[in-house]
Amino acid sequence: MPDRLRKWNGWGYEGEGIPAERVARWLKAVEPWLRISLKDHQPPLPLESLRIPPPRISVEIPGFKGDLTATPYERALHAAGRSFGDLVRLRTGQDLCFPDAVAYPEDELDLLRLLESAERQSIALIPYGGGTSVVGGVEPAVPPGFQGVLSVDLARMNRIRYLDPSSRRVRVQVGIRGPDLEEALRAHGLAFRHYPQSFQMSTLGGWIATRAAGHFATAWGRIEHRVESLRVLTPRGVLETREVPASASGPDVRSWIVGSEGAFGFITEAVVRAVRPPVAKRAGGFRFPEFSAGLEALRRIVQAGLAPAVLRLLDEYEVAISAALTGRPLEPGALLHISLEIEDPEDAHRAEANWRSALRWIERAGGIPASEAVETWKQAYFEQPYWRDLMIDFGLLLDTVETAVPWSRAENTVRTVRERLLQRIDRWSPVGGVMTRVTHVYPDGCALYFTFFARPPREALREAWQDLRGTALEAFLECGGTITHHHGTGRDLQSLLMAEHGSLAVDILQRVKGALDPSGIMNPGVLVAPTPHG
Amino acid sequence: MPDRLRKWNGWGYEGEGIPAERVARWLKAVEPWLRISLKDHQPPLPLESLRIPPPRISVEIPGFKGDLTATPYERALHAAGRSFGDLVRLRTGQDLCFPDAVAYPEDELDLLRLLESAERQSIALIPYGGGTSVVGGVEPAVPPGFQGVLSVDLARMNRIRYLDPSSRRVRVQVGIRGPDLEEALRAHGLAFRHYPQSFQMSTLGGWIATRAAGHFATAWGRIEHRVESLRVLTPRGVLETREVPASASGPDVRSWIVGSEGAFGFITEAVVRAVRPPVAKRAGGFRFPEFSAGLEALRRIVQAGLAPAVLRLLDEYEVAISAALTGRPLEPGALLHISLEIEDPEDAHRAEANWRSALRWIERAGGIPASEAVETWKQAYFEQPYWRDLMIDFGLLLDTVETAVPWSRAENTVRTVRERLLQRIDRWSPVGGVMTRVTHVYPDGCALYFTFFARPPREALREAWQDLRGTALEAFLECGGTITHHHGTGRDLQSLLMAEHGSLAVDILQRVKGALDPSGIMNPGVLVAPTPHG
Repeated sequence: MPDRLRKWNGWGYEGEGIPAERVARWLKAVEPWLRISLKDHQPPLPLESLRIPPPRISVEIPGFKGDLTATPYERALHAAGRSFGDLVRLRTGQDLCFPDAVAYPEDELDLLRLLESAERQSIALIPYGGGTSVVGGVEPAVPPGFQGVLSVDLARMNRIRYLDPSSRRVRVQVGIRGPDLEEALRAHGLAFRHYPQSFQMSTLGGWIATRAAGHFATAWGRIEHRVESLRVLTPRGVLETREVPASASGPDVRSWIVGSEGAFGFITEAVVRAVRPPVAKRAGGFRFPEFSAGLEALRRIVQAGLAPAVLRLLDEYEVAISAALTGRPLEPGALLHISLEIEDPEDAHRAEANWRSALRWIERAGGIPASEAVETWKQAYFEQPYWRDLMIDFGLLLDTVETAVPWSRAENTVRTVRERLLQRIDRWSPVGGVMTRVTHVYPDGCALYFTFFARPPREALREAWQDLRGTALEAFLECGGTITHHHGTGRDLQSLLMAEHGSLAVDILQRVKGALDPSGIMNPGVLVAPTPHG
Repeated sequence: MPDRLRKWNGWGYEGEGIPAERVARWLKAVEPWLRISLKDHQPPLPLESLRIPPPRISVEIPGFKGDLTATPYERALHAAGRSFGDLVRLRTGQDLCFPDAVAYPEDELDLLRLLESAERQSIALIPYGGGTSVVGGVEPAVPPGFQGVLSVDLARMNRIRYLDPSSRRVRVQVGIRGPDLEEALRAHGLAFRHYPQSFQMSTLGGWIATRAAGHFATAWGRIEHRVESLRVLTPRGVLETREVPASASGPDVRSWIVGSEGAFGFITEAVVRAVRPPVAKRAGGFRFPEFSAGLEALRRIVQAGLAPAVLRLLDEYEVAISAALTGRPLEPGALLHISLEIEDPEDAHRAEANWRSALRWIERAGGIPASEAVETWKQAYFEQPYWRDLMIDFGLLLDTVETAVPWSRAENTVRTVRERLLQRIDRWSPVGGVMTRVTHVYPDGCALYFTFFARPPREALREAWQDLRGTALEAFLECGGTITHHHGTGRDLQSLLMAEHGSLAVDILQRVKGALDPSGIMNPGVLVAPTPHG
């Protein structure tokens, strides 16, 4: 696979983007409403205009086989993740913080050398997978006391170690990106099918470190359900879990690592559970007069033990705004999208039986067929990050936050979060809105995903974003939800860990950190600092 | 529910047992083979003949509302778990170790008072649920340095806190026993359906502390999948996780507690995921000429995404021995037992479709219908512990050990463990055998459950048992398996934690222990001691 150049200040690879005629069409649709026009477009700052300070340290690591580089492009590429705020900073050149250098290790020996040097020289190491964190997880902004910061890009540690096709297991280096993992498995009649929106750019290691959940997680489970075994290189040695499908041998060691945000060491290898690629599917869209009726259908479907690959519900606001943006006529109401995959042609009768049961629950809840919900989601899903870059250049605020709550608290959570966000949007912007969708379902609850947009004064874009996101997070906690369903906490949400988990849980985390990374060189600023007791 | 008297030295409640005529029939069947007869029966020691030393301490806890007792019966009841070795000791009165007293707290306030007193007076606390540990998890044998040992029986903390029927969640105090939990849920049209062999006696808290997996875990998941939220009273305060269906907010705090063996504190409450009780089922038995062909069928069924409530495979030795014991004619070969439950009459078509797919895989692997596999399993499953008491009185050694491995390692593991066990049995006993079954299946592997029996010299019953169990555990590790699939590690397997997980994982556990129980009063001897750095 040729090494395409990743955009240092936006989504995807150089040359990719939304075609101009589609931008023009979009602009025409939103012009009267958002009061923007082509003249509001401000192109992003070119790399040459970025003020990148010289590296504070000159990193030399004896015997290091990979690349150590400090070019402006590499330092800018690794300067931030891909949150709305990150992109505003990258595209305007404000408030950025750059790693002193970027390392591309070839193997674990290289990582060991990095760890040794970093501990000796008090250099902070930022594990970097796809760099798509939306919570400041790969930001080289570290607490005081370090001589320098090294971003450690694991892109080259992306090889398949071995395949065990009968057990549908594969041992793989976690620097592998989504599309490459799928490609490697495809040759063996297998697939992984973990599809976060960042799929194209993000890596297995990033998914594990952030406890990700892909688009098809209702069928295949969150990343923690897909990992059989993990190998982590910590400053205090190797932690490796056994390759067993299940165990009762003390607490589950794997789950200390999943969600550890790179704070405990470098996750280097994982044995993951593969699946079979689908050969066909049964998919449909349905309209509900009320969001709550759609919720009822989702709940019944998942509690009946059906596991559709996709089960999504868009609220009436998202439907209305989509209609306005696309110009396609969409009747008002909430839209449900369901897709059941068929992996084995001989099992088509099972998919049919499941489909029949799902339809029963949809109909009972008052759903009526609405095929328009289905057609374009996939393209839109993976295109969304490209649009976001463009919105920023137009001075628009657009972001999402998500939580998870039991079914019995879902409606109250939606109402509360919506109200709070709308109140705050009013303070910042003459236009704006909040849309809600259900993206993941569980027998006991669901994930609620909120999109908010506004047009605050251009100079207040980041401040408004932080304020709105903070408003939503506060409401999540108040409603009994979690601060993040599938994005991790990074640096941005780190201060809320205490509110979510309490001081005893944070104390435990600090001690685990102390056991694995007593000098605190691993991704300092995320999760916790090591306990002072070492 | 009337408080029946639990047997202090055997399974179940006083008055329960295998009827005499069935014992006689069994004896007739095994007499020529195991060379035992009625005259070999030695009745267990009566309570009055036990040498129970006087309590070393007189525990007084100001304000304690529950019961504090030091009667011989209560001290004997709480003297050991229910492993083969425990029962040999209890029935012969040898090598026992008694708690100085037994506490029955009424609520968390009582537990708090216990924790305070115990820390002040250096008393070890042994959390006691159903007392059915088979790995020494509730044994009051603690390292030196304690003034006394208190067994803390949580039987009275067994109330339902609240039900959330739409989300199928229930918050419950974890001292509740299996049958009581089912009864409480039944009234609301719900069920829990976690059926370990100890179901009748064991508690939700015990299942959580030992990372249990019930008989129907293939359909409903292991206990860690059934727990939405946990509340733990530790010597350093309350640890409580949020009631959310999923989260990416750092590592999963719940999974530090599941499998913690009472070493971190008292698990007091849990929110668990209920299911609907089945209204019907589709079940069948199938014979395979070879165990390996049966394995192939299991693997295909679970990898096809079918989730039968029961999917078990007995090897040819277990089938032959069952035939010999029951006198029923069983043709040679391995037996597969599958049961698909139907929760909703309207979903019967789905169960039929799943059944058809399962049959396809069974037939392809060479299985032929054999209904005798199915009829009696349930009675036999829950009766087995009563038989074991009887075996001991006849001087027979009978126990089980289990592991889990990927599918690709299953056959080698079965062969290796069998060979090693048979070799060792030869050293101890003129008769004996090893049987294997697959009890739990996962897409990437399965749990292998080994039953071994022998007739060593009567005085060497425990020594032979320890030797044989140790032989199997060693072989598990050598074959890449885990030392326990669903029983926890307790005191008996504690020394193998390092071999299974490595020193870094053990170091982490010590530090977590240090954070929650720095004085090490919680179930000392299991899992780890607190790190000296506190």
